[in-house]
Amino acid sequence: MPNPHHYGLILAGGRGTRFWPRSRRRSAKQVLNVLGSRSLIQGTVERLRAVIPPERLWVLTNGYLRDEIVKQLPEIPARQIMAEPAQRNTAPAIGLAAHILQSIDPDAVMGIFPADHVIAKEARYRQLVRSAFRAAESGRIVVLGIPPRWPETGYGYIEFARGTAPGAQAIPIRRFKEKPDARTARRYVAHGRFYWNAGMFFGRARVLLGELRRNLPRTASLLAALPVFDDDEFGAALGQAFPRCENISIDYAVMEKASGVAGIACPEIGWNDVGSWNAVYELLPRDRDGNVLPKEAISQAAGGNYVDAAGKMVALLGVSNLIVIDTPDALLVASRESAQQVGDLVKMLEARHRDDLL
Amino acid sequence: MPNPHHYGLILAGGRGTRFWPRSRRRSAKQVLNVLGSRSLIQGTVERLRAVIPPERLWVLTNGYLRDEIVKQLPEIPARQIMAEPAQRNTAPAIGLAAHILQSIDPDAVMGIFPADHVIAKEARYRQLVRSAFRAAESGRIVVLGIPPRWPETGYGYIEFARGTAPGAQAIPIRRFKEKPDARTARRYVAHGRFYWNAGMFFGRARVLLGELRRNLPRTASLLAALPVFDDDEFGAALGQAFPRCENISIDYAVMEKASGVAGIACPEIGWNDVGSWNAVYELLPRDRDGNVLPKEAISQAAGGNYVDAAGKMVALLGVSNLIVIDTPDALLVASRESAQQVGDLVKMLEARHRDDLL
Repeated sequence: MPNPHHYGLILAGGRGTRFWPRSRRRSAKQVLNVLGSRSLIQGTVERLRAVIPPERLWVLTNGYLRDEIVKQLPEIPARQIMAEPAQRNTAPAIGLAAHILQSIDPDAVMGIFPADHVIAKEARYRQLVRSAFRAAESGRIVVLGIPPRWPETGYGYIEFARGTAPGAQAIPIRRFKEKPDARTARRYVAHGRFYWNAGMFFGRARVLLGELRRNLPRTASLLAALPVFDDDEFGAALGQAFPRCENISIDYAVMEKASGVAGIACPEIGWNDVGSWNAVYELLPRDRDGNVLPKEAISQAAGGNYVDAAGKMVALLGVSNLIVIDTPDALLVASRESAQQVGDLVKMLEARHRDDLL
Repeated sequence: MPNPHHYGLILAGGRGTRFWPRSRRRSAKQVLNVLGSRSLIQGTVERLRAVIPPERLWVLTNGYLRDEIVKQLPEIPARQIMAEPAQRNTAPAIGLAAHILQSIDPDAVMGIFPADHVIAKEARYRQLVRSAFRAAESGRIVVLGIPPRWPETGYGYIEFARGTAPGAQAIPIRRFKEKPDARTARRYVAHGRFYWNAGMFFGRARVLLGELRRNLPRTASLLAALPVFDDDEFGAALGQAFPRCENISIDYAVMEKASGVAGIACPEIGWNDVGSWNAVYELLPRDRDGNVLPKEAISQAAGGNYVDAAGKMVALLGVSNLIVIDTPDALLVASRESAQQVGDLVKMLEARHRDDLL
């Protein structure tokens, strides 16, 4: 049986511009079904169901996405799916959720989950989540560490206090490391004590609020002054207070400074942050030429391509390692190796004030 | 003043499958405006206007395209735009036109023109057409030879009886040469006496009919038995006779065997048969990265690409030398160097009975 004091906070405020042209302000990565029949946020909820039932899940997102998320997640009470009044990164969002949960349940323990990752080995993952919750009950903040599979420079790392083999035990963290340069990343991976920080944290609401008071006092006091969640004035008060909170991530604001942070060095759970169209390509089944194509597509001398063009005949001829994303109003053609730069195109559209395409 | 006995026959029965997905049975290459504001067949008519006014132009096409051509060429009397009852290559088509013109004007001299080529230097071209008509009045068949710019293996060649510099004089042809292999093509180009056969012929209707009787007697007698063009029975009789004609090109059936064929070795007239999307790319103005893109497209680290995607934002990232053709129901992504093989994709669609895309 799930523990009734365990709550989940799903952080769903990102824009996911690397998934343009399918991702737009109102259809960001987390609500897209890039990998199959359900969206990434629906997958996140399903994956957690046996540990945290939907009625104890909370979602923080932005005003563009809230309606879509409410539609996609009918089992979560709509009032628990909240639009942040301003984009303020993760620290104020987590503080807000901790504030609300603490007022609802003084024994609340929170798990914090990105909305838009995938995890292939769900049963094993749930065991780790249960272990992390248990470890957090003792008053520690607990983070999940993903064994690094390559020297990624796009992720933060966590350094365990001692060399450790993967397992379900929470052991002390020495330090949080921001995104490293390539040389440092290679050293981390060779070292054995460094794990990827996948942005999954666990802690008592009370403990998180205490860390916030210590490290981010302005945000903490703004949140502490809010009326109770049920109050009619709550929404208006939040709209006043939230934009005045610091715009900072929980990693910078709290985790790097908190004492008594522990981590679980996860065994392989098939974690993927689905960071680009190329990640989608790598996660999907391919044909014998290494293509991921719509049904009925035709191709000749073409390999390693990913094409998303719903309802249209796609024909490839003599091309390789391309990403092609076709939508009614925009068409992206990129090399797979430049998939990380798709956000640059979105910046160009912003510079041209093409709000119709954002 | 144009000579009132000079007539034009525009051959517009081709499918142009290399322009899929924009070319379809009802919108083949000749009626597309791949190069600007007018279609290729409209360009052909405009180019000839000062030599052959539209009222003396005839068009032979197929049943799929006739209505569109009638719409595009309102100045040509609709009855002169005829759908061949069956696809029988160029010899029966030219024979049919010669038969009709001979009955209308016993002094008719015909110029025969493909519908779907472009010629940049139109004034110079018209001078050559006038010269060819004059030379044909003496009873010869006259062909225009295009100075070869590279050892093309996709064209036929004409060999002049003697070395010749380009000019407006008709001089004897020794032989018609079918599409050569690469080695032979290189020899032709080095030789100086070989010119590309661009499919433009001139001759008295009477002379062409005589050659047809000699070289293709079945077709000649089937056509000779037709009622006069004005007769109500003409259409039905043609529907019976035409499918029984030989399916053969004028080159094979007549030109290779005819005596007294002369040619004009054209100076450079900017002729292009617009044989593929790559030819379109090469004919259009490019941006500084060598791209031909729709207005407002955005690109980064992309060069040498041709994109046709009307009304849609196009974004290119890290890709080069691609052909991308987007239509409401089909999307082609090809390398420029494989543009000649686009017809292979059309064959795949035929094999799958995808008539909706043909």
